[in-house]
Amino acid sequence: MGPGPSDVSPGVLSAMAAPTVGHLDPYFLRIMDETQKMLRQVFQTKNPLTLAVSGTGSAGMETCVANLIEPGDRMIIGVNGVFGGRMVDVAGRVGAEVHKIERPFGEVFSADEIRQALRQHRSKVVGLVHAETSTGALQPLEEISKVVHDAGAMLLVDCVTSLGGLPVKIDEWQIDAAYSGTQKCLSCPPGLAPVTFSDRAITAMESRKTKVSSWYLDMSMVRNYWSNSSRAYHHTAPINMNFGLHQALREVLEEGLEARFARHRDNHLALRAGLEALGLAYAVEESIRLPMLNAVLIPQGVDDKAVRGQLLNEFGIEIGGGLGPMAGKTWRIGLMGEACTKRNVITFLGALERCLIANGYRPQPGAGVAAANGVFA
Amino acid sequence: MGPGPSDVSPGVLSAMAAPTVGHLDPYFLRIMDETQKMLRQVFQTKNPLTLAVSGTGSAGMETCVANLIEPGDRMIIGVNGVFGGRMVDVAGRVGAEVHKIERPFGEVFSADEIRQALRQHRSKVVGLVHAETSTGALQPLEEISKVVHDAGAMLLVDCVTSLGGLPVKIDEWQIDAAYSGTQKCLSCPPGLAPVTFSDRAITAMESRKTKVSSWYLDMSMVRNYWSNSSRAYHHTAPINMNFGLHQALREVLEEGLEARFARHRDNHLALRAGLEALGLAYAVEESIRLPMLNAVLIPQGVDDKAVRGQLLNEFGIEIGGGLGPMAGKTWRIGLMGEACTKRNVITFLGALERCLIANGYRPQPGAGVAAANGVFA
Repeated sequence: MGPGPSDVSPGVLSAMAAPTVGHLDPYFLRIMDETQKMLRQVFQTKNPLTLAVSGTGSAGMETCVANLIEPGDRMIIGVNGVFGGRMVDVAGRVGAEVHKIERPFGEVFSADEIRQALRQHRSKVVGLVHAETSTGALQPLEEISKVVHDAGAMLLVDCVTSLGGLPVKIDEWQIDAAYSGTQKCLSCPPGLAPVTFSDRAITAMESRKTKVSSWYLDMSMVRNYWSNSSRAYHHTAPINMNFGLHQALREVLEEGLEARFARHRDNHLALRAGLEALGLAYAVEESIRLPMLNAVLIPQGVDDKAVRGQLLNEFGIEIGGGLGPMAGKTWRIGLMGEACTKRNVITFLGALERCLIANGYRPQPGAGVAAANGVFA
Repeated sequence: MGPGPSDVSPGVLSAMAAPTVGHLDPYFLRIMDETQKMLRQVFQTKNPLTLAVSGTGSAGMETCVANLIEPGDRMIIGVNGVFGGRMVDVAGRVGAEVHKIERPFGEVFSADEIRQALRQHRSKVVGLVHAETSTGALQPLEEISKVVHDAGAMLLVDCVTSLGGLPVKIDEWQIDAAYSGTQKCLSCPPGLAPVTFSDRAITAMESRKTKVSSWYLDMSMVRNYWSNSSRAYHHTAPINMNFGLHQALREVLEEGLEARFARHRDNHLALRAGLEALGLAYAVEESIRLPMLNAVLIPQGVDDKAVRGQLLNEFGIEIGGGLGPMAGKTWRIGLMGEACTKRNVITFLGALERCLIANGYRPQPGAGVAAANGVFA
């Protein structure tokens, strides 16, 4: 119940253990095709260039940035958490002239702020984080996308924590490049990064004057391996990781995206009621709260690490601490994918009550669990 | 029985399916520590900076090159197969001034050739491929290492196919940077790249004036995550892949390196006897032949793809075709890790006989299997 990796279903774990086949084996090529089809459904896109990069979410970030940016290109990046900050670092390394815009951790950007930034600093790409795993804030994208395109720029979005738990409407919102990770709401072990690119992004990549700085992540070659018309060998794909993702996507689509989003929302509301009944406050304003990542303020006088250690050692529950300026100030409670269950909400609230009491904080006994049960009813 | 991925043991497949834990979970940190210790044994090194990069072998190549090379640095790269060629591409992208030296596919470099290249083109790094997976040739390194160091350069070596099947003596040979993959003689699914760096390499990395072009592969941060004194979060490691590698390394060391090398050599000799009895000739001179990757010339008039297709469809055996200039001219028969067994040698020779006959080639019936059995006896 931390910020990811989330729990993985027995079906996905079994798929990880299937006998390894060759990276050009007809069976594996079928798995690749099916994975692409399912990723398009989850990303809600028709983008042909949709596939799983052979690295974790940060490799997905680097893939999107490095393929769209050439040395000297301008990029606006919104920094309101750790992952926006990471994108600035990644973009600088591949030669972008980065214009950083900032909001305090836990807040998000308005369309006006993006419009203003684009006026000041005409850019090729605007990079934003949809669901900031470090803060628990949700960045609305639809209006911003129009602003970005009106200025002739492309929109690049980090969907690591949102994909599979919240709507990510690539086509409807006209997002040009997006990346995710497998270990959040898709409930697959970490190791792959789903990415998708719009036609506009492909045109930009095809008009590059320089090679992508990373051979491993160069989409002009990776896409030929994933394309069922060429299948040109590039690198040896992580076969068993792809077995895992294939099964995880099947399970996501079997549940249905809408049902899955509703489950994340409902359990979040129950958890919220329980946390508030225990006297804890959210670190993020209600309208932009992520359902799958609940960032709450640590009550005055309570020892961050003592509580997290006790939760782990006594109850086998992992939650995340704060990152960056939030270190020691917030807890990040994940309700992602397989881990997003009524059972986990109740178990966590009961265990947290015990750990808070052991650390000198006095919530109303039983209030957390009762409040959550009230929401379930 | 292709050029990898090789077969994976039931123990390693089971480890891949263990429940996913957090990337900073105390249990996972122990797995990381133990993996580093075992990797040092397999690499025959005391290098503290020895770990598994979160990508496949090509990501390991990029890690070694990108961390040692800064824009404008000179690098000599030996190209005698596909993977040397790939290294040239990788090095050029990170800004190296590459001096390429070439040998025909299937041949290797002499110490004199390296000495001459270093005289012509004083370099920071010399990059060579220990076991060329595309050709089946083994590059001797010990004498070359002295030549490289006498010229004040560092030696970077691709050990993707050799590690775990042939001696890779990092300390004794004084190799400064080496990378491998998990899916060859370590018999783990693809997805991680073991790497190791000498103190000289670390000094070079610590004296960099520019950031590594890849954030994801920047060892100055990755090493802090793997270091048990800091454990600074960098990226979310592929947890289950690391479970797999941990178990694979346990199995390698349980067998013992010397016993494992002997097994690879013995089965190679039996396969060789069988192939020669069927009338097939090796594409690589005997003194530099890889035991785990047998490249043989396709007999005149025999259809490459028809034979490989029949082997796969009728017998469930995958072998590799030739790469680059060897396409259509050679087959690459792997005897790697778990797949390196007497049983596979016999099965393959029997199946190949059948497929050769079906394709109009007339070997002496039963000669291949009989010759291999003669070697086993």
